[in-house]
Amino acid sequence: MIVLFTDFGWGGPYAGQVRAVLAQAAPGVPVIDLMHDAPAFAPQPAAYLLAALAREFPEGTVFLAVVDPGVGGTRAVIAVSAAGRWFVGPDNGLLGIAARHAGGARVWEVDWRPARLSASFHGRDLFAPIAARIGRGAAPAGRERTPGPGLLGPAADWPDDLPQVIYCDRFGNATTGLRATALPPDAAIGLGDRRLAHARTFSEVPAGTPFWYENANGLVEIAVNRGSAAEDLDLAVGSGIVVLPRAG
Amino acid sequence: MIVLFTDFGWGGPYAGQVRAVLAQAAPGVPVIDLMHDAPAFAPQPAAYLLAALAREFPEGTVFLAVVDPGVGGTRAVIAVSAAGRWFVGPDNGLLGIAARHAGGARVWEVDWRPARLSASFHGRDLFAPIAARIGRGAAPAGRERTPGPGLLGPAADWPDDLPQVIYCDRFGNATTGLRATALPPDAAIGLGDRRLAHARTFSEVPAGTPFWYENANGLVEIAVNRGSAAEDLDLAVGSGIVVLPRAG
Amino acid sequence: MIVLFTDFGWGGPYAGQVRAVLAQAAPGVPVIDLMHDAPAFAPQPAAYLLAALAREFPEGTVFLAVVDPGVGGTRAVIAVSAAGRWFVGPDNGLLGIAARHAGGARVWEVDWRPARLSASFHGRDLFAPIAARIGRGAAPAGRERTPGPGLLGPAADWPDDLPQVIYCDRFGNATTGLRATALPPDAAIGLGDRRLAHARTFSEVPAGTPFWYENANGLVEIAVNRGSAAEDLDLAVGSGIVVLPRAG
Repeated sequence: MIVLFTDFGWGGPYAGQVRAVLAQAAPGVPVIDLMHDAPAFAPQPAAYLLAALAREFPEGTVFLAVVDPGVGGTRAVIAVSAAGRWFVGPDNGLLGIAARHAGGARVWEVDWRPARLSASFHGRDLFAPIAARIGRGAAPAGRERTPGPGLLGPAADWPDDLPQVIYCDRFGNATTGLRATALPPDAAIGLGDRRLAHARTFSEVPAGTPFWYENANGLVEIAVNRGSAAEDLDLAVGSGIVVLPRAG
Repeated sequence: MIVLFTDFGWGGPYAGQVRAVLAQAAPGVPVIDLMHDAPAFAPQPAAYLLAALAREFPEGTVFLAVVDPGVGGTRAVIAVSAAGRWFVGPDNGLLGIAARHAGGARVWEVDWRPARLSASFHGRDLFAPIAARIGRGAAPAGRERTPGPGLLGPAADWPDDLPQVIYCDRFGNATTGLRATALPPDAAIGLGDRRLAHARTFSEVPAGTPFWYENANGLVEIAVNRGSAAEDLDLAVGSGIVVLPRAG
Repeated sequence: MIVLFTDFGWGGPYAGQVRAVLAQAAPGVPVIDLMHDAPAFAPQPAAYLLAALAREFPEGTVFLAVVDPGVGGTRAVIAVSAAGRWFVGPDNGLLGIAARHAGGARVWEVDWRPARLSASFHGRDLFAPIAARIGRGAAPAGRERTPGPGLLGPAADWPDDLPQVIYCDRFGNATTGLRATALPPDAAIGLGDRRLAHARTFSEVPAGTPFWYENANGLVEIAVNRGSAAEDLDLAVGSGIVVLPRAG
């Protein structure tokens, strides 16, 4: 299974062009569009989202991950193997948190380049053929990195959990980069002067009340029952939060 | 064929996560994303839309339908067999109109639960595996309901046709919950003080004129040639209409 | 491979209903959603976009192209064979530029009609079954047009390259209908009083500076590094540009 995780948006031809390359280069391999509205141009929040989403996929899955503001520049291209799954993308930190959370990651710098490489669309021209090759069962074409501080690239300095909003969905729920398992079960979340208590799910809190809960991917998510947390609490990707050890 | 009908939106990972479950649990079964912008949190208008869309699909199709404001609460999970098609979803009325229009429906309460069930994403954790099982040709795991008033759950009290707007598309066309066959052919549609005449299609009316026509799914739809009915007539999901027996 | 290029939008059931027809009528043939936000109701800019996107697809690809403001009227339905690819759609010019750029096109007027043809959704009822038939390897059912001025229908009078914006993406990049190969390499693009110089890609220009570059599909595209060209320069589909032979 090849899984697409990008900031291309559903509009435009971009995701379709990538799917067309995969259909030709890895025929018969199922392709899943997981997300095309990952945080645009923002590899750090996207990295925490990808890590949380990747956990539920079976061994052998290949993630084609593209949030790549440096396209056309000099950033390296990497393939990561971790916990039986593969990740292909730019070496800008995007793959680093999934690799670290899974543990035991191996990283290859891929030096293969296609005969025709556009300056602005490496998702189609470079990452997709690499993912297709791995999806067909071949090894990545490149040299393996030595374990050590540089293994995860720019993500080496990032924390295990990110106390920020990393995604807001259409309902206004604000996902953070904190795994719920990283918090004491009775913790509260602080947003400026506000203190949000924990609830198991929406139906446990009165309409209009903000709270936090563990979302279906194991992340701390801020929500308002029958309301929009993003709007009511003025949250967006990058908004900082703090963990308050005990609900007051 | 497994057909997705949800209010998840195309943004976010939700639809992709459901597709990933289906690709694993029902490999080789085609999956069609029919609609991910069904009326959000609104099972009643969504029920009339699903009923109209389901008619054209072949026998053996399994509809995975999720408009589920009660997720995490106590509503039952049902599988419906009607006219050779299957429907899987929450027992909140969403499946009831498709069942009634098809006739001869049989309903199962599904009591199977997965080992891991999130509080907020039953589409992925519960409905998708049930749909996959039926898509593979197995019977639903649960007990069949006795025919009678409770068979269709909360939809038992809903009318056969709903005189309301149930969907507005990107062009501003406003679909209603009325089947065109339920109207006299020369009927007009009343919207407050306005009276809209029937036309066969857009090119039959002058630009800017509102009218109603039978849309491609057999429903009464309100439109404005080269304009937006939703904007010009201030229509949204839930706006009421009346049938005027004869165009004046 | 059957490739969808439409102005249906991702919202609503339209694209899904077309995919469902194809899954039944051409089982096993891969279907790629290339684009569902082609310029709405605007066959001319859509034609230049389709022509640029089609080039990279392999021989045997069937494009199902629907930008069809005349649906329900009298426009003909055509199938075009050019450079080993097929195109199916309305005879309103939409397929004409792809045919001309590929060269050696043959055009059929398709007179087959389904038993049930809605007035408003020929994408599902008419174009999809025709594309499925060709995707299965059969010839189109109709009569071939004689080469000559009428071969390309309304596109016969359109230029080879269109000096207009034909698409704006989510990042605000404005694609034009000019192939980069049609310009001298040191040309500038004029927008009213502004003169935009060429750059190879975003990272070559300072943030906030507008420029033009050859996009990944070979077209002249207007962009602003870390900004939105559409917003900053007030561009939309139809905005005219001029080619200035030499950057000043």
